[in-house]
Amino acid sequence: MIKVGIVGGTGYTGVELLRLLSQRDDIELCCVTSRELDGQTVCSRFPNLRGKVDLRFSNPDSSDLKNCEVVFFATPHAVAMHSVPELIDYGTKVIDLSADFRINDIKIWETWYQTSHTCPELVDMAVYGLPEVNRDDIKQAQLIAVPGCYPTAIQLGFLPLLEMNVVDTMSLIADAKSGVSGAGRKAADPYILCEATESLKAYGMAGHRHHPEICQQLNIASNSKVGLTFIPHLAPMSRGIFATLYAKPTGDESLSGHVLREIYQKRYAEEPFVDILETGEAPATRDVRGANNCKISVTHIEHSNTVVVLSVIDNLVKGASGQAIQCMNLLSGIDETRGLEGIALTP
Amino acid sequence: MIKVGIVGGTGYTGVELLRLLSQRDDIELCCVTSRELDGQTVCSRFPNLRGKVDLRFSNPDSSDLKNCEVVFFATPHAVAMHSVPELIDYGTKVIDLSADFRINDIKIWETWYQTSHTCPELVDMAVYGLPEVNRDDIKQAQLIAVPGCYPTAIQLGFLPLLEMNVVDTMSLIADAKSGVSGAGRKAADPYILCEATESLKAYGMAGHRHHPEICQQLNIASNSKVGLTFIPHLAPMSRGIFATLYAKPTGDESLSGHVLREIYQKRYAEEPFVDILETGEAPATRDVRGANNCKISVTHIEHSNTVVVLSVIDNLVKGASGQAIQCMNLLSGIDETRGLEGIALTP
Amino acid sequence: MIKVGIVGGTGYTGVELLRLLSQRDDIELCCVTSRELDGQTVCSRFPNLRGKVDLRFSNPDSSDLKNCEVVFFATPHAVAMHSVPELIDYGTKVIDLSADFRINDIKIWETWYQTSHTCPELVDMAVYGLPEVNRDDIKQAQLIAVPGCYPTAIQLGFLPLLEMNVVDTMSLIADAKSGVSGAGRKAADPYILCEATESLKAYGMAGHRHHPEICQQLNIASNSKVGLTFIPHLAPMSRGIFATLYAKPTGDESLSGHVLREIYQKRYAEEPFVDILETGEAPATRDVRGANNCKISVTHIEHSNTVVVLSVIDNLVKGASGQAIQCMNLLSGIDETRGLEGIALTP
Amino acid sequence: MIKVGIVGGTGYTGVELLRLLSQRDDIELCCVTSRELDGQTVCSRFPNLRGKVDLRFSNPDSSDLKNCEVVFFATPHAVAMHSVPELIDYGTKVIDLSADFRINDIKIWETWYQTSHTCPELVDMAVYGLPEVNRDDIKQAQLIAVPGCYPTAIQLGFLPLLEMNVVDTMSLIADAKSGVSGAGRKAADPYILCEATESLKAYGMAGHRHHPEICQQLNIASNSKVGLTFIPHLAPMSRGIFATLYAKPTGDESLSGHVLREIYQKRYAEEPFVDILETGEAPATRDVRGANNCKISVTHIEHSNTVVVLSVIDNLVKGASGQAIQCMNLLSGIDETRGLEGIALTP
Repeated sequence: MIKVGIVGGTGYTGVELLRLLSQRDDIELCCVTSRELDGQTVCSRFPNLRGKVDLRFSNPDSSDLKNCEVVFFATPHAVAMHSVPELIDYGTKVIDLSADFRINDIKIWETWYQTSHTCPELVDMAVYGLPEVNRDDIKQAQLIAVPGCYPTAIQLGFLPLLEMNVVDTMSLIADAKSGVSGAGRKAADPYILCEATESLKAYGMAGHRHHPEICQQLNIASNSKVGLTFIPHLAPMSRGIFATLYAKPTGDESLSGHVLREIYQKRYAEEPFVDILETGEAPATRDVRGANNCKISVTHIEHSNTVVVLSVIDNLVKGASGQAIQCMNLLSGIDETRGLEGIALTP
Repeated sequence: MIKVGIVGGTGYTGVELLRLLSQRDDIELCCVTSRELDGQTVCSRFPNLRGKVDLRFSNPDSSDLKNCEVVFFATPHAVAMHSVPELIDYGTKVIDLSADFRINDIKIWETWYQTSHTCPELVDMAVYGLPEVNRDDIKQAQLIAVPGCYPTAIQLGFLPLLEMNVVDTMSLIADAKSGVSGAGRKAADPYILCEATESLKAYGMAGHRHHPEICQQLNIASNSKVGLTFIPHLAPMSRGIFATLYAKPTGDESLSGHVLREIYQKRYAEEPFVDILETGEAPATRDVRGANNCKISVTHIEHSNTVVVLSVIDNLVKGASGQAIQCMNLLSGIDETRGLEGIALTP
Repeated sequence: MIKVGIVGGTGYTGVELLRLLSQRDDIELCCVTSRELDGQTVCSRFPNLRGKVDLRFSNPDSSDLKNCEVVFFATPHAVAMHSVPELIDYGTKVIDLSADFRINDIKIWETWYQTSHTCPELVDMAVYGLPEVNRDDIKQAQLIAVPGCYPTAIQLGFLPLLEMNVVDTMSLIADAKSGVSGAGRKAADPYILCEATESLKAYGMAGHRHHPEICQQLNIASNSKVGLTFIPHLAPMSRGIFATLYAKPTGDESLSGHVLREIYQKRYAEEPFVDILETGEAPATRDVRGANNCKISVTHIEHSNTVVVLSVIDNLVKGASGQAIQCMNLLSGIDETRGLEGIALTP
Repeated sequence: MIKVGIVGGTGYTGVELLRLLSQRDDIELCCVTSRELDGQTVCSRFPNLRGKVDLRFSNPDSSDLKNCEVVFFATPHAVAMHSVPELIDYGTKVIDLSADFRINDIKIWETWYQTSHTCPELVDMAVYGLPEVNRDDIKQAQLIAVPGCYPTAIQLGFLPLLEMNVVDTMSLIADAKSGVSGAGRKAADPYILCEATESLKAYGMAGHRHHPEICQQLNIASNSKVGLTFIPHLAPMSRGIFATLYAKPTGDESLSGHVLREIYQKRYAEEPFVDILETGEAPATRDVRGANNCKISVTHIEHSNTVVVLSVIDNLVKGASGQAIQCMNLLSGIDETRGLEGIALTP
């Protein structure tokens, strides 16, 4: 039994952690914090957890997070950094789903998140929690920065091309479409049903704060400096990231779809949660709804000599809470796939 | 009073013609055909037209289309070509919303639509019905081929760049997202609510039949041969096309957003239905739902030196029936905007 | 030209007034108020109005509402009552879409709206703006209280039965389903897309503030005291009220569907916006989306001897702004249907 | 390991059986039949099952269903009756999700399903598979008729009232709202996204074939003949049944909400999948999406002396496949809840 705590249990990623963890018999949920709902039962707020989660929300200040072996932070950005140092000192393992420890260049982080970082020294020790890249480091880590949803879908889609050095790294394009839960449980005008349903729009034209995170990681993968055009869109659905990626082959001879698919299959052959589709097949976000999978399809468009990659995840699972649990399994020495083999719910 | 007939009145574009035309006092709807519903009242099938349209559906063979001055074909592809020649001989003006007369290269058409064209000689005389490009020819035309929905959104988005010769025509990318009505009123598995809702997917990876139509028109605009990567997606909504377009500047100096916006504003200054947004604003498909508008936003992404154009229409209005009526107005000498100034319905 | 002002131009009913009024050439929109957006152009906030509405939002305090002949209040409850008295003194005609003047019993109003009414004397002079009941009074009114969305759908559905005295008034049931826009543009948790989509729920079990309004009006229609069970539900869609009404026949002989339909047809024979469907047909909310219609179907269920009435409106049109304009037409001596004949947008 | 076969593996209930069964280690999926997809892999048709289900579809005629200990029929109505007798003779246990064995009165069945029943003698031996009513019989059964989705929600909602004999059985009302998957994976006009989304409608006014099934069971529960008004509605969502039930108390003293809740709690105290909500709480269909739960709320409306029951299930789980598996667990002597404790997926 691993003793687990969740800080920020009322947002979508917090509740998703509860959904995924409460069904396991090797996990003891010790505390779930919420300043706002302190003292209320978790299941009175989240009726789908009735009979599954017995806890009450507790105040993060008073709750005994130090009794936990692993603490997840499912908090808005710039919250975890205030509490993590004390837990780290105490020896607790911390898995942060927010952006606080993802970006190595503190100045860039401070520019995008508009505040001073309170523990830049911990950023250095944090391991970026993408198992497909950092599995060994995650196993040894004490502090894990779980990637964001866009970064996960886009990195997994681009990695094989960059690592094999077969495309022009200076003109990468990521046209990404996200479900509304990507914005969190935010009661703001653009996210109310009447505003968001039956419509699709782009946003963040002036820059999106996931952009530096994605570039940092693609730079590492390609061992160079990438130029990435990243245009996020809001799609009228709850869950799902669909990333359509474009790249130009560098070699003289064009890359056939067959060769590309082999590159991808080889790269992800041992990965339990990355699925390379047959040539010509395209994924749909529904195929991963509620599941910890990334489905990828890769094609070469001959007449324009362009590589197109389709990379699909559930933003709350492989793009957040599922990935966080995958990291927890790794650092706890448990089978990496445990509790994460749920099948996507369709329709 | 212009006497108007509609062939194929039960598909989405046919009903949209009825919605837009039935409210006008300068139009006499003479016949609406449907083999399947021959004899039934139009409003028994389409309750929203009760009290607005008094007609019964008639059989296309027996109905007196020749009494009409203008006949719209809102039929599936490869239907209009069988009936149009007789009407043309008779002197009737024909506006075809299907693909039968859009593609000049008959062989390409026959490859994509998998049948022999029965009147290739009429393809030559047909005018491509995009008023923003062919206004004068439309006024004089007897046969008009109304552009498809993707081609309308993508052309209007790319035209200013191509006409001004400021981007590399060989590496154009169109990442397009369509509402489900783009597939017509088709009772097929992928379009039923349970399959299409709450999901986003790409399709047509192996090629889409709108691709040759788009390329033909972009070739004309750029006076060269374009290389276009076109990836269509199905979005979980009824109406709307959102086209996200990417292009590489050719000049040495990069194009600023300001310069780009000026190019677009100048190009469309006199266009009643093309709206160039302020720099930094992004359109949403809901902003044109039910309206005959195209909303365009253009941006230059500095760090990757890429031009991004967002072009949005309602696929059933500016992408089909509204555009067809715009053409009818032009060739009838009526104010081009008549009956097309309805405001988008939000929420 | 009628000079018109709108107080509270940013809520859904305010914007719907703008959509419906801005297309008319007999209306001069003089001012649209919003404290929050004072000074901004209306169309920067509502892009679908670009090119249609030239105004800027103005502060309600400074704006010259007194120059208007008719002022609409599209404000939250308990706002209009503070400003209406001064306008009434000045001779302005006021059409209030909120609940401030709907309920004759001030104590009941104060109980439900949790505040003191500031001008109870005006409640007496206000005319309840349901043209199907109060047409003549509306023509002479200076102050109109436009019915709420549930009350409109439920009244129009029950009226013929109550007026003809053919059902037991003590056991009426209204099972009503509303689209999310019924809650207004409210950025609260239950209305964000992720919470409201793909789900249906009941609410207001302990009582809904539309209940006393409905009962007051049904009492008048039946000339008795009704007992009404009213259960509202939130449906995962933007617009539409679907009211399913149940009543027990009182007479010895059961009411046939045929007789019932005749009662309804007779009652609404002269009504331009109430449409009685054929026996056996059921309405859908989409058939009235964006339109000022109420569609009603009435059936007798033989084996349980129960009358079932289905009554459907668009909550923002016949349930709010359309009805308000219908009242304005009446009190201005304009054709009642003017500007309200738009066809429902489907799909 | 129980050897299991599924006949009709491509409909929604078939796939839901696969989702729920494929994750169990005590079940061996032996065959999944489909005439249409004979020979294809299951996961090529249902990508969410990739890596979870290794089988290919087989032809029901040739496939070795007799090797199975339990065979589920997830077929359209009037299919199972042709194949079940042979399996019954052979000793196989059969769980039919269709209506073939639900209705004891063969004439009524034949009227509603418009065909002759081919094995009426089996109807007598079939056990109606509602564990909350027939648990002991299910344990001993060889042939189980799993209730339909509406009947499950409505029975569980009415049972305590009828069994306790506290309401007038002649004037029961069930106003039920169903997600579109209730119609099966049917590519018919009313179910395509553009027709079904953003709209709510009633249907089956002339009678619904679930009505006799519901009445048969309510008659048994009340030991009398019930009069039930049943109005089904189609709601714009994939999954979920929301049944709003109305009944009149018979006693002289009215039933308080408190007393009612106690009746329900007592009735379902030992039921693992029926959850009685706190007084005043209302369920939402999302709270049971993907889960085998029925959530019930009961209220007494004082001013109209009416009992209102809200009963909510996922039509594909507790209303079909989950319930079928619950029956399988019972007749196999396995813990009834096994494989059915999944948590509802929200958002």
